[in-house]
Amino acid sequence: MTMANYLDHTHEPEVQSWVTSANDPATDFPIQNLPFGMYRVHGSNEEFRPCTAIGTFIVDLLTVRQAGCFEGHAMTAANALEAGTLNAFMSQAAEDRRAFRHALFSALSLLGNKRAEWQTGLVPMREVEMSLPAKIGDYTDFYTSVNHATAVGRLFRPDNPLLPNYKWVPIGYHGRSSSIGVSGKKVRRPVGQIKSPSDDAPRLAPSQRLDYELEVGMFVGSPNELGESITIGDAEKHLFGLVLLNDWSARDFQAWEYQPLGPFLSKNFSSTISPWIVTMEALAPFRAPFYRSANEPQPLPYLDSEENRQRGSLDLKLEVWLQTKQMRANGQSHERLMQSNFKDSYWTMAQLVTHHTVGGCNLQTGDLLGSGTQSGEDAAQGGSLLELSVGGKIPYELPGGETRTFLEDEDSVIFLARAEKAGFRTIGFGSCEGQIVASHQNNQQDPRP
Amino acid sequence: MTMANYLDHTHEPEVQSWVTSANDPATDFPIQNLPFGMYRVHGSNEEFRPCTAIGTFIVDLLTVRQAGCFEGHAMTAANALEAGTLNAFMSQAAEDRRAFRHALFSALSLLGNKRAEWQTGLVPMREVEMSLPAKIGDYTDFYTSVNHATAVGRLFRPDNPLLPNYKWVPIGYHGRSSSIGVSGKKVRRPVGQIKSPSDDAPRLAPSQRLDYELEVGMFVGSPNELGESITIGDAEKHLFGLVLLNDWSARDFQAWEYQPLGPFLSKNFSSTISPWIVTMEALAPFRAPFYRSANEPQPLPYLDSEENRQRGSLDLKLEVWLQTKQMRANGQSHERLMQSNFKDSYWTMAQLVTHHTVGGCNLQTGDLLGSGTQSGEDAAQGGSLLELSVGGKIPYELPGGETRTFLEDEDSVIFLARAEKAGFRTIGFGSCEGQIVASHQNNQQDPRP
Repeated sequence: MTMANYLDHTHEPEVQSWVTSANDPATDFPIQNLPFGMYRVHGSNEEFRPCTAIGTFIVDLLTVRQAGCFEGHAMTAANALEAGTLNAFMSQAAEDRRAFRHALFSALSLLGNKRAEWQTGLVPMREVEMSLPAKIGDYTDFYTSVNHATAVGRLFRPDNPLLPNYKWVPIGYHGRSSSIGVSGKKVRRPVGQIKSPSDDAPRLAPSQRLDYELEVGMFVGSPNELGESITIGDAEKHLFGLVLLNDWSARDFQAWEYQPLGPFLSKNFSSTISPWIVTMEALAPFRAPFYRSANEPQPLPYLDSEENRQRGSLDLKLEVWLQTKQMRANGQSHERLMQSNFKDSYWTMAQLVTHHTVGGCNLQTGDLLGSGTQSGEDAAQGGSLLELSVGGKIPYELPGGETRTFLEDEDSVIFLARAEKAGFRTIGFGSCEGQIVASHQNNQQDPRP
Repeated sequence: MTMANYLDHTHEPEVQSWVTSANDPATDFPIQNLPFGMYRVHGSNEEFRPCTAIGTFIVDLLTVRQAGCFEGHAMTAANALEAGTLNAFMSQAAEDRRAFRHALFSALSLLGNKRAEWQTGLVPMREVEMSLPAKIGDYTDFYTSVNHATAVGRLFRPDNPLLPNYKWVPIGYHGRSSSIGVSGKKVRRPVGQIKSPSDDAPRLAPSQRLDYELEVGMFVGSPNELGESITIGDAEKHLFGLVLLNDWSARDFQAWEYQPLGPFLSKNFSSTISPWIVTMEALAPFRAPFYRSANEPQPLPYLDSEENRQRGSLDLKLEVWLQTKQMRANGQSHERLMQSNFKDSYWTMAQLVTHHTVGGCNLQTGDLLGSGTQSGEDAAQGGSLLELSVGGKIPYELPGGETRTFLEDEDSVIFLARAEKAGFRTIGFGSCEGQIVASHQNNQQDPRP
């Protein structure tokens, strides 16, 4: 099997749309993207409705279905669209979803028929608000960046940074799904137990080491039965698409609580995802083959195949941007803190799906898998402030003389992602943004530094 | 506030039911219990319907609602009953739920009116099958038994059995909700990575250290908003009721995978709960005050109140029973392996709810909180085979000359629970049963012992 099998005419870079903003080279949403999300007109009380993005517009998919814009396999997929959540649509067979993508692509291209009918579905993006695209059942967070695992391990366990299981087991744990929200949601600084090594006892206080984690989120499309596993060859067929994920973390709570059962309150107060699910089909041109070097442990057979190595991960550029209250007051836009790339993850998406199910655990449509923090090899490519400030010891310098070790109230954090490759249109993810608001208990803050 | 505030006429032991099997002293379901579950007639393809249990019968609550059996506040609660799941009913206001309990109690007592209408709802328990009572969003598992934490800690970390955070933090972690099933479900032996200390590399194999964990599960009734916490005084108002929970565990996978993010595949292949939610109201007579001894760390203020100490935990006797394939062939019934009591848990239910939400994490109706394995102080009171066999080193002796270190294929495990106290009718939980079936990959089993 060669990579070409996954490419088709919807990846041809020269195709343009009659929605002219989609032809802007800077847009995240050219006709080659066609991500899925849930929108409503800003300020309305309507249920959220399924849509795609094209340039600076969204297309209401229920409206164009109503206008008779789909047929055949595309209509089969379209029939699963409903207000409220994308889950039923996401569980459709790959063949029907592909037909649906082809129908969107044809209709929105310059050669598209029924342009009048499609125009009835267009709404300017600036007029809409987005919700979570899917009802998330279970949320699993992995730990796929060996750079992150090593850097954080060094801070928590200086003698023993990378544990012996790391290069054998795609390490992951279960996260909290109820507190996952969509980009734009405020994040309240959490209260929790903090104990420094020098304290005799812990105290309850707002986190003083509040952090972001730069992650890629993978949405499960088709499920598997409890007791049945998914082979490495079938694994990616179960993924519907990707979003950006900010797994906000309270490092002070984490250090005190995480043994022996892992992070809990340090992570479950909030997570944020970007609203657009960029499909696996749209990302097909950007595969990044991944071969273990000969001096590394080779994956166990259930996690290994030539196809898995050849398809590998994705060449997806990731960025973190920060704007402080002072920057906002001075009219300064967000400042880029770092860049990394999803292709540097130690485990592929297929390996995560296969490992998750090898014991028979059932994945369900709408489940979210997080990649874990994506850090580059260089210290400046840390995917969290914990890394960029070396555990809070070396403040990160911002323009205007400010510094950050961890997040302050009113800081806004934006994640961006971009898949780009010579010969293809660049695919963007939109943004994943969150702003910190003060804790309810700031007045109880302990005076100790 | 005194305990008497939580008691009312539904706890009077002398009240009997016209469903005479409910008056049998050995029943789990006297008229003082009235738990909630979801049933259908065995073998039918109907949606599951809400019911209560009385002696050897269930009462179909939609049928008796239809027959005009409720009014006032009880009718408000009854209107939230629907086929499929109990969630809407569970989220009703405490006042309405209490009125509903009172209505059931009156109608099923010897003085009950409308006996003919109520009889239309009766179905013999032997004719029904039960489903999960609620749609479970998030599942959190705690670690409240200090005896279990110490015994297991000694096996995993001989030098450091009880970690320094244990007596300050109600340790918990997020579990997998998709793989939770109801009593009676078969449990397939999972496959996963195993590495003994003497092995150079892990291998993929069926678990050879498959275990149960004896837990109490708590169902969340009314939710809290993201970003808002629940005080210790309000905490129990958010609990709807309790079930038994078997958190099946693969100890060999667990030892290899659990650092640094906690258990994952070792726990997520299956969990089993009993079908009847025994309400907090039914359990009111069985409170077990819990005072920390003076030489223990006292709980931080957010986890402490005189009411919390006085209400404490619950005096709930827990038991584990086992039947092997050989015992079944010989006509031997299940053998009791151990007994423990939920009152010995180190943290109260209220402390778990308050800790879970102190950072703003939102609990939702239908969320399940596990107590963690409930082990007694004595070594014979271990809540798992890991403890009873001292890490697999001392086989547990069964009648007929068999022994067990961990579970074998076709072993059936039953958990039972009973709240009993002089002057009150005994309340039972029904049973939580699961039987192990062979792994799909038994033919790949490694020959090493």
